[in-house]
Amino acid sequence: MAARRKRAVPSPDAGLAELRINAPRIEKILVGFLAEESGRAGRSVLLIGLSGGLDSATAAWLAVRAVGPANVIGVLLPYRTSSAASARDARALGRTLQIRLEEVDISPMVDAYFAGRRDASRGRRGNKMARERMSVLYDLSEQHEGLVVGTSNKTEMLLGYGTLHGDLACALNPLGDLYKTQVRQLAAHLGVPRAILTKPPTADLWPGQTDEAELGITYAVADRILHLLVDRRAKEAELLAAGFDRALVRKVREMIRRSQFKRRLPLIAKVSQRTVGVDFRYPRDWGT
Amino acid sequence: MAARRKRAVPSPDAGLAELRINAPRIEKILVGFLAEESGRAGRSVLLIGLSGGLDSATAAWLAVRAVGPANVIGVLLPYRTSSAASARDARALGRTLQIRLEEVDISPMVDAYFAGRRDASRGRRGNKMARERMSVLYDLSEQHEGLVVGTSNKTEMLLGYGTLHGDLACALNPLGDLYKTQVRQLAAHLGVPRAILTKPPTADLWPGQTDEAELGITYAVADRILHLLVDRRAKEAELLAAGFDRALVRKVREMIRRSQFKRRLPLIAKVSQRTVGVDFRYPRDWGT
Repeated sequence: MAARRKRAVPSPDAGLAELRINAPRIEKILVGFLAEESGRAGRSVLLIGLSGGLDSATAAWLAVRAVGPANVIGVLLPYRTSSAASARDARALGRTLQIRLEEVDISPMVDAYFAGRRDASRGRRGNKMARERMSVLYDLSEQHEGLVVGTSNKTEMLLGYGTLHGDLACALNPLGDLYKTQVRQLAAHLGVPRAILTKPPTADLWPGQTDEAELGITYAVADRILHLLVDRRAKEAELLAAGFDRALVRKVREMIRRSQFKRRLPLIAKVSQRTVGVDFRYPRDWGT
Repeated sequence: MAARRKRAVPSPDAGLAELRINAPRIEKILVGFLAEESGRAGRSVLLIGLSGGLDSATAAWLAVRAVGPANVIGVLLPYRTSSAASARDARALGRTLQIRLEEVDISPMVDAYFAGRRDASRGRRGNKMARERMSVLYDLSEQHEGLVVGTSNKTEMLLGYGTLHGDLACALNPLGDLYKTQVRQLAAHLGVPRAILTKPPTADLWPGQTDEAELGITYAVADRILHLLVDRRAKEAELLAAGFDRALVRKVREMIRRSQFKRRLPLIAKVSQRTVGVDFRYPRDWGT
């Protein structure tokens, strides 16, 4: 136990101290990241799918500070069952930030596909919608010669709570290394409206959906378990000693394991000296 | 010059000797790759978008050898301007291989999107189609609890001749480390029908399109330049000394450079100890 105490694994009741961020410093890093990487790509226009939720609002805020409001396009991509309140929040955010807003109803495209597939599950419909939104965002990024900014946070990416080639797809993601509870801290610092800060997180794929109900875990608990497992490399025994529930810790570990395919490139069979994604990954790999 | 001779950079007239493959050996590796990786993912059904062209035919052939015809689903995904001859070739291939065939016309979904965007360029339309095909293939892979097999070859991947989150998206790609001319050798060895072996490669995104006209280079030349630049790490001077055209070599190099973003994961701003895609990439990265 003494050894464990020295590693200072916090108890579940210790609050979120270990997840506290230096928000002004993180803001500076992320604004710099968006400015620098968009400049490197030769594209100053940034496009963000605005859901009315916390992550996309925070990403839009950072984008405005990085390239200015005239270079940010917020895109509303509602499906016919999407919450009208979410769309109102997204439009209000766009007005507050004075960015350009576009709106594309994805219902005609999605419904055309499922017309002959009425038995498709809710999960399949949700993934199709997420991929349609990606497809529209990428098309608009071609039209406006811009880059798609991703809004997946680290909690979602590690738990696999996102659609591959859907909402996980982007050119640049300023939030992918911040847990959900850290995104909220950053958003509060940036001045994101209280209505957006306090609403229950939802993917809005069907009415009444909330992330935490679907995941079966609150963000407050998930973030602490993930932080310990991933960033602090804690063993299961250490989490249990700190009072975390064994079943919950195993569930989180299993969610990470099962979603690994969403965080990697397609597997390519290696048969040559230099293989894309294996040993040909960076410009430096071919000597420029 | 003597030093160059020693490195034995072949002249452009030296033929494709350096690209010759040991087809039986490559077949064995690729069949094993598909069998092993699908087993590891716990999914024995493989889905392949069949275009009627060489790459998808070759991938389907390998998939049949890996998991048996009953576990392979060939999916035809025509748009209304797609070549009817291509679809006939794809259906004939499916019958030859005795695999299951599905057909989904992507026109209603694609046309619904472009209804209000009549000025969209051919390139944008082509990318939207490629992403719709991906979206349908991934949905069918959920329905059938299978995996999407990619068919992009190494030439396409290095030149960036493919749509990100479109035809480049897949779970497993058996062909991504073979140049186009090598895929053709493998296909001939496997017994892919002559009609498919000899037809001009095309993405079939608009009538009359051929890869080589659009790329502005033949596969025979592109493959030799790519092989020298990438696999053999030859310098431009060596390619020029071997007789390759300077403008062409630079064009190929520039195509590789400009398409790097298609071969990597989204860029995530790093602000923590362990970042998805940077230092959290493999299961071993978190100690399991």
